[in-house]
Amino acid sequence: MAEKSVYAHRVEPQDVDFTLCATFPSLGASILNTAGIDAHSKGFGVDVLNTDNHSWILSRMAMEFDYRPQQYTDYTVTTWINEYGRVLSTRNFTLCDAEGHEFGRAVTQWAMLDLTNRTAVDLSHVGDTHADAMVACPSPTDKPRKIREVSPTIHSEHRIVYSDIDFNRHVNTMRYIEMMCDLLPLELLTCAAPVRLDVHFLHESRYGQTLTIGCELREREALFEISTDDRTVAVRACMAWK
Amino acid sequence: MAEKSVYAHRVEPQDVDFTLCATFPSLGASILNTAGIDAHSKGFGVDVLNTDNHSWILSRMAMEFDYRPQQYTDYTVTTWINEYGRVLSTRNFTLCDAEGHEFGRAVTQWAMLDLTNRTAVDLSHVGDTHADAMVACPSPTDKPRKIREVSPTIHSEHRIVYSDIDFNRHVNTMRYIEMMCDLLPLELLTCAAPVRLDVHFLHESRYGQTLTIGCELREREALFEISTDDRTVAVRACMAWK
Repeated sequence: MAEKSVYAHRVEPQDVDFTLCATFPSLGASILNTAGIDAHSKGFGVDVLNTDNHSWILSRMAMEFDYRPQQYTDYTVTTWINEYGRVLSTRNFTLCDAEGHEFGRAVTQWAMLDLTNRTAVDLSHVGDTHADAMVACPSPTDKPRKIREVSPTIHSEHRIVYSDIDFNRHVNTMRYIEMMCDLLPLELLTCAAPVRLDVHFLHESRYGQTLTIGCELREREALFEISTDDRTVAVRACMAWK
Repeated sequence: MAEKSVYAHRVEPQDVDFTLCATFPSLGASILNTAGIDAHSKGFGVDVLNTDNHSWILSRMAMEFDYRPQQYTDYTVTTWINEYGRVLSTRNFTLCDAEGHEFGRAVTQWAMLDLTNRTAVDLSHVGDTHADAMVACPSPTDKPRKIREVSPTIHSEHRIVYSDIDFNRHVNTMRYIEMMCDLLPLELLTCAAPVRLDVHFLHESRYGQTLTIGCELREREALFEISTDDRTVAVRACMAWK
């Protein structure tokens, strides 16, 4: 059994919006970077997996922020893995201010992909190999919720460009969250209420494709569906304000 | 007279493109963040200027990169001010790898804006007040060059959204550079040759406006002009590969 790992972060000028508070995508990027660095330091990062032609793929993500910290604020991201299912492993996070008060938390679920045939690897045996890295501590909030149906009333289109793509030439996770935010009224995005985001990644989308971003606005809740040219759903998501 | 100041940076996963090298906008953001932190630490940051209803406005920028560092690379940004003209002050930068080898440099020119009437402040007396912060060391490369005429053959449109804007609700400097990059062929963007970017900021553009990004591709050179709905030119720029 391992201990939780703690990493230092700071809200930099490129991380804030016009209210000088950290954006959801910038906080999400800190969370995912922490996952990458922690997996690397424990010997099962993407670099090591790639030598077996495997990779980690983010399947679902839930993030909660009680408030968004201001520019130049120091904070920590604590992370631990507490579960290996057959297909998904669960990595958890808490975000704390300099005084140690928790202001955010996240639960992410990852599949291991075999890049030769692009199928999910059975994680049953991997969980044993990585047992030393597991922490017997529950997730800090509910696991990512399923989002089954979205009936969008607002739409935008976006051609996937150079600045959107990651090392796989797929759209970067946080770019999806930017596209969703950019469909919302500023009043909702910048309201001070605690917020929860649930995101499901269903299919990859690639450089040169055109995405349709659809949004269904309910009271204190926004549902999203992002699909590619051929109407394949790439991402479904929900943002809910308390 | 002051000494040059040195700040530590690292190429994070959100800073790289699909080649795992730092993008131009991420290197530009490091440069501008260094300017902000250095001005703040010397007592003439935007926070202090705002109490007089003044602010620094980036007018012109030149950046040269011999190569783009890879993900997780540590590097330093060294900065110093060496000139106060009547309207523009000049802040310089060099970027060095962990062994101290210079791989990039930048020269930026800033106006001080009086926010009450949105006119430039005469810097003649400001130069005296800030004399302690000046460093008698020449700029590391040519000052930003003027770009007079652009005859675009490639165009794109972009409606200004939440994720594009800074604390003034104007388009963030580095978003302009992203928009330019996104018009270029991947082969040019990712070629290993040293590159120089010259950018002139002529007018602000605001949330809700639609930008037209025009590009004129020449041999080893791309010229850009970004204009707002009413055809006001917001930015002109040139990228040149050796």
